[in-house]
Amino acid sequence: MFHAPSGRHGSHPCGRTVIELVKVPNAAPTELDLRALIETFFREEFTTDNPVITEAVRRMIAAGGKRLRPSLTLFAAETQGADPREHLALAAYMELIHVATLIHDDVVDRADKRRGVNTTAVDFGNRVSVLAGDYLLAWIFKNVTASYPAPIPYILSATLAEIIDGEVDQLRSVGDLTCTASVYTETVSKKTAALFAASAECGAIAGKGSAQNVRALRDFGRAYGIAFQMADDLLDLTSNETELGKPTGNDLREHKMTLPLILALQQADQKFREELARCYHGDDSAATAERIAFLIEGIARFGGITRTREAITKYIERAKAALLPLNGTPTQFRLINLANALLT
Amino acid sequence: MFHAPSGRHGSHPCGRTVIELVKVPNAAPTELDLRALIETFFREEFTTDNPVITEAVRRMIAAGGKRLRPSLTLFAAETQGADPREHLALAAYMELIHVATLIHDDVVDRADKRRGVNTTAVDFGNRVSVLAGDYLLAWIFKNVTASYPAPIPYILSATLAEIIDGEVDQLRSVGDLTCTASVYTETVSKKTAALFAASAECGAIAGKGSAQNVRALRDFGRAYGIAFQMADDLLDLTSNETELGKPTGNDLREHKMTLPLILALQQADQKFREELARCYHGDDSAATAERIAFLIEGIARFGGITRTREAITKYIERAKAALLPLNGTPTQFRLINLANALLT
Repeated sequence: MFHAPSGRHGSHPCGRTVIELVKVPNAAPTELDLRALIETFFREEFTTDNPVITEAVRRMIAAGGKRLRPSLTLFAAETQGADPREHLALAAYMELIHVATLIHDDVVDRADKRRGVNTTAVDFGNRVSVLAGDYLLAWIFKNVTASYPAPIPYILSATLAEIIDGEVDQLRSVGDLTCTASVYTETVSKKTAALFAASAECGAIAGKGSAQNVRALRDFGRAYGIAFQMADDLLDLTSNETELGKPTGNDLREHKMTLPLILALQQADQKFREELARCYHGDDSAATAERIAFLIEGIARFGGITRTREAITKYIERAKAALLPLNGTPTQFRLINLANALLT
Repeated sequence: MFHAPSGRHGSHPCGRTVIELVKVPNAAPTELDLRALIETFFREEFTTDNPVITEAVRRMIAAGGKRLRPSLTLFAAETQGADPREHLALAAYMELIHVATLIHDDVVDRADKRRGVNTTAVDFGNRVSVLAGDYLLAWIFKNVTASYPAPIPYILSATLAEIIDGEVDQLRSVGDLTCTASVYTETVSKKTAALFAASAECGAIAGKGSAQNVRALRDFGRAYGIAFQMADDLLDLTSNETELGKPTGNDLREHKMTLPLILALQQADQKFREELARCYHGDDSAATAERIAFLIEGIARFGGITRTREAITKYIERAKAALLPLNGTPTQFRLINLANALLT
């Protein structure tokens, strides 16, 4: 189990690091330091009562990830004048909620690979994967209810409900060629952005921010999360298998209604629509490499890529505008940098 | 969503019933009334934000169940002088934690039928089943953290972690003919009895019981839960398909290490061991009707049934002994009746 947050029990959650930090109490940790602290924290502090589950979760964590959610928590706490190193456990829970949903997603999506390595479902079987995800969620809530006052436990459980609600919506929209951009945005706001919003909000609360600042950071997280999912949709079309850890056009093979596709469909010709319908309403053999390549090219040709970039820009601007109440907070630039990075 | 518990927000969670109850404020509800109130509560108050999930959960609830966990919560509250009708929402959450684990179990066990009707996995598919279980758990924690003070949210999340830990242990013991009675008891204490213990404990806390009484009721629930699982193991061998809603000897087909089997193995002859090994270490075709019938007969012949009944009696006595601190509480007889009913 993680140690309890230092603010309540007097012991720093990351024993080895605290010695070093005590020597330089006024040193502001750089972004790199925070990311490294998160990794050290996972490596040295994460364990559960069940060795099979601990191993399954450790493999998922070791496979990588950008740790954007815990970064948001730490950056948000920092903007409120708190020492982010005191909130590593809370930040870690945000990543672990994400990990738990990924473990179940890989069962739901029957995925073989995640970040280029075997999924939990492949290494441990679907049975253990379902149970490992359940256990991890229960373990997170157990620790959060033990260590954090209201409203943090409520925010985390409400956020999980919102994520799953969005996943069910997404599952129902699979293959639905009538899915609109507004339905898409509502779904990703729940499925993806809710956890970014909660990560920033809880960081602000832990940092003892004012109600106005907590709200500003939550709104930043929500808009950032929507832009993040849109950028993720783009990557699936514009990146390569080495970078993605899965084949380009994977969302098309899974018949997902991504924003670039939805926007392209608004301007697409008959030929594109027919090929898409063959791919999305046929069996797996319909998703030939030629057809996927044709669809990717068509999405670009009919403005899906350009217009998705415009939508991402809009949500990034919205995220940055949400931070206005924080004006004068010296560390808000980290959040702004995080948002701007989605454009590149 | 359920209404908040009446004690905090002034509105009774079950509008229609409260009118009748207001007319006879001193009438002690009978056991039948409480069971009926639980059913009415589920039928009239249960809904979530996601219609697919609401429907999936409602079907599970409508399929039946003895509602033992919510009964324990209400009886425990009653022993502490509380009006059990004020704790229907809390009692319902206990049943819903059970329902959520069943929805996932049916994915894990690849079960087709539950209580004689299609499982969620059959009606909605594995994908929705995984998500429906997740959503239900998140929804429960969201409502519990919104409406109940510490330590109730902690107890529920710690209990869920314990249940899943026990399920992973059980999964690992499948087909393991060296499994001992003490390993069995430890597994069912987590997998099954933890939720009975939490149901009684939370009822006692909600009823404002003393620390001693809360502990007594938790201990009752734990011992009762272990006896309950042992009785459930027996039923799988001694009941019939109509009563069970699944074929007799189903645990044997699933290669489960139940207590009657473990105890029979202590005295079994070579022939029984060989047939068991063929069934448990062979493929599905090895579980012929003849072999299952032979194993059931053998379990009885080698004392598995008789000695399991003795173990049940021991845990029922332990459960009743746990209630000693409640002596003088007029309503503890309901808990004693519940425990005694396991013997018949």
